Amino acid sequence: MASLKYYKKCFMEELDRLGKNAKRAASELAVLNTREKNEVLMMVADLLEKRSTEILEANAGDLEVAREMGMKGAILERLTLSGDKIRDMAGGLREVAGLEDPVGEIEEMKKRPNGLLIGKKRVPLGVVGVIYESRPNVTADVAGLCIKTGNVCVLRGGKEAFRSNNAIVKIFQEALAAAGLDRNMVQLVQDTSRESAVAMMKLNDYLDILIPRGGAGLIQAVVQHSTVPVIETGVGNCHVYVDEEADLEKAIAIVHNAKTQRPGVCNAAESLLVHEKVAEKVLPAIGKSLGEAEVEIRGDEATCRLIPWAIPATEEDWGTEYLDLVISSKVVGSVKEAVEHINRYGSMHSESIVTEHYTHAQFFLERVDAAAVYVNASTRFTDGFEFGFGAEIGISTQKLHARGPMGLRELTTSKYVIYGNGQTRG
Amino acid sequence: MASLKYYKKCFMEELDRLGKNAKRAASELAVLNTREKNEVLMMVADLLEKRSTEILEANAGDLEVAREMGMKGAILERLTLSGDKIRDMAGGLREVAGLEDPVGEIEEMKKRPNGLLIGKKRVPLGVVGVIYESRPNVTADVAGLCIKTGNVCVLRGGKEAFRSNNAIVKIFQEALAAAGLDRNMVQLVQDTSRESAVAMMKLNDYLDILIPRGGAGLIQAVVQHSTVPVIETGVGNCHVYVDEEADLEKAIAIVHNAKTQRPGVCNAAESLLVHEKVAEKVLPAIGKSLGEAEVEIRGDEATCRLIPWAIPATEEDWGTEYLDLVISSKVVGSVKEAVEHINRYGSMHSESIVTEHYTHAQFFLERVDAAAVYVNASTRFTDGFEFGFGAEIGISTQKLHARGPMGLRELTTSKYVIYGNGQTRG
Repeated sequence: MASLKYYKKCFMEELDRLGKNAKRAASELAVLNTREKNEVLMMVADLLEKRSTEILEANAGDLEVAREMGMKGAILERLTLSGDKIRDMAGGLREVAGLEDPVGEIEEMKKRPNGLLIGKKRVPLGVVGVIYESRPNVTADVAGLCIKTGNVCVLRGGKEAFRSNNAIVKIFQEALAAAGLDRNMVQLVQDTSRESAVAMMKLNDYLDILIPRGGAGLIQAVVQHSTVPVIETGVGNCHVYVDEEADLEKAIAIVHNAKTQRPGVCNAAESLLVHEKVAEKVLPAIGKSLGEAEVEIRGDEATCRLIPWAIPATEEDWGTEYLDLVISSKVVGSVKEAVEHINRYGSMHSESIVTEHYTHAQFFLERVDAAAVYVNASTRFTDGFEFGFGAEIGISTQKLHARGPMGLRELTTSKYVIYGNGQTRG
Repeated sequence: MASLKYYKKCFMEELDRLGKNAKRAASELAVLNTREKNEVLMMVADLLEKRSTEILEANAGDLEVAREMGMKGAILERLTLSGDKIRDMAGGLREVAGLEDPVGEIEEMKKRPNGLLIGKKRVPLGVVGVIYESRPNVTADVAGLCIKTGNVCVLRGGKEAFRSNNAIVKIFQEALAAAGLDRNMVQLVQDTSRESAVAMMKLNDYLDILIPRGGAGLIQAVVQHSTVPVIETGVGNCHVYVDEEADLEKAIAIVHNAKTQRPGVCNAAESLLVHEKVAEKVLPAIGKSLGEAEVEIRGDEATCRLIPWAIPATEEDWGTEYLDLVISSKVVGSVKEAVEHINRYGSMHSESIVTEHYTHAQFFLERVDAAAVYVNASTRFTDGFEFGFGAEIGISTQKLHARGPMGLRELTTSKYVIYGNGQTRG
């Protein structure tokens, strides 16, 4: 017990120190102009490439431990860096440097009847906490987006990427120091225990926002335990609904793309809904197309009748994000039933209707409650780059602050600036 | 224990029922057009006036219990309704009906290189939970703003206003039913126990947002316990800083107004900072002006020297929101020191500098981290009506989603609507 207490004291001290550092750095970073921030980003990009050996060595250390611990497959792959991946990180930072800086813009400035001039100025959030899992490139992405938007970040990566993350953060800190800035604008939590993560969720005194990036388990843990305001990201139980008036060629292509183009990501389709009037015609063709891509189909009775190799779905399937080559499938009686099913089982991420019918399309767009609602397009387009933001910090599936892909603007808040000449309230 | 368990079961059942009702009603309310929503608001306004006797009787019942329980003064006053107050409520609803409806507007619609047409549509949040204290007119205000913005509300008022709140909600529900709509668009939680309030903070399945309205204790309880996304409102430890280059007449008038015009509200000033170069000249005059309004001054050493009747301040005073005729006062050496003091002790609500010096004004506007930052004006202007929003649901002191006075637009979120013609991702 005594050692547990001592241990708790240690990571609370670390978080407290990081928090204080972050607060101090935030007031400095917030008032940098765009050129100064871009210079840091370009400098970090150069350093990442110049010192890639150092990063790759750290990464090799992480990989060795991970292999010893029996990790393999996709997790190991996500953890692995390469010269190309480091060049991509650097390229990403240079792109972010090239984007427009949202900070400082004053919106809706207007003069009130009493002469007060009131405007809404876009300002950094302040200190952004991010809890993420194994991919070390998230470290560079997030730190870059935060610097560009004038936000200090406190990063808490996965234990398995500890060495890689430290190597990357070290380069950020060196570039900041070389630019004469506070190196604490980018900090990495050194204690990667679960207890320390939970403690970070209570750091209301220091963090303005907490963004979890990772699997559903991580995100739910943060939503449940955090007293710091959270942006929920990423869980996507996305549907494609093939309407009675669908163009069947488009339907087959969109379903195939939404499910198979990259099945492990949040905007991939996990569930197919087909109107009963076209089920007989289109389901076997969709089954063929998905079958060729080795997709497992879990269907309701009607689906299983039309695609004999489909596996009967259970109630649980309708709510499941497979993140794999699996899709659930259900035949419905109307666009209304499709919408109700989606609003019941979906995760408010991305939903698509395939139809040539004007009113059905408008009904679906209006009634489906999700971050992104499509007509005749693949759900795979929900991301910051495809939406033209040039960058993405995550995809919000909640309704407060930001919904859908979050770019630079979503990492800012506003403050009212009011110019008076002695006004008092009567 | 058995009865406690049974009791818990009861209010969980109530909240579950209300939540389900709300979800169902939300999909109906979200798609009403502006005219339909305005008609309901006008109907409720008429009914409130027509049936004021009924409301006043219910209020008399609340007041009787409150007096028996020993309530008096400001609390009793906030609880008391009158014919005039009911007419004000009705008038407020008619004004809200006259405001522009933010729902349905599509912003930033643009065509991407692949032909996708992407727009950001303003939509209701869905189900808004509000936990508030004794003022029954909040019931009508909040329900009106929610209906206008297409949001269903689940209201949880104070125990002491139970009868009044029920009488008001009954009228809303009757008007909704008379309009052929779901009466559950406005619901009141009947169990007013603390346990039920805490349970409401965990209703993530049903509530999209939770807004606490009331004292600092209530707000902190909600921030600490809620897993539903919260908008923190209202705590205001606001400062007026009198710069070395201040127009002293303006300074005296602004400090007097900010402190005394309505001391019990969140945008009233609680702390005065004065530059040392003008302290000798301006502090005695401010002291005289505040003294005449019977304001107690808690000052640092320099203040107490210049205003002999001031009481020495303790460290605690710098962080205190008095909500009363009390103000803390401190002499500082520079605008930089003033800003640091504000960012350390303030609650990020409203802050004002009095100065004729251009660079000091810009420095203060840029560096103070608050929802509203003023030059040469009273902090008392921070509210939705003064800012020209026509209505206000509260004043956010957090950075996510909304900051400062929240009007109709802040009760909405967005959803991306995407028009395609068969696009798949390559």
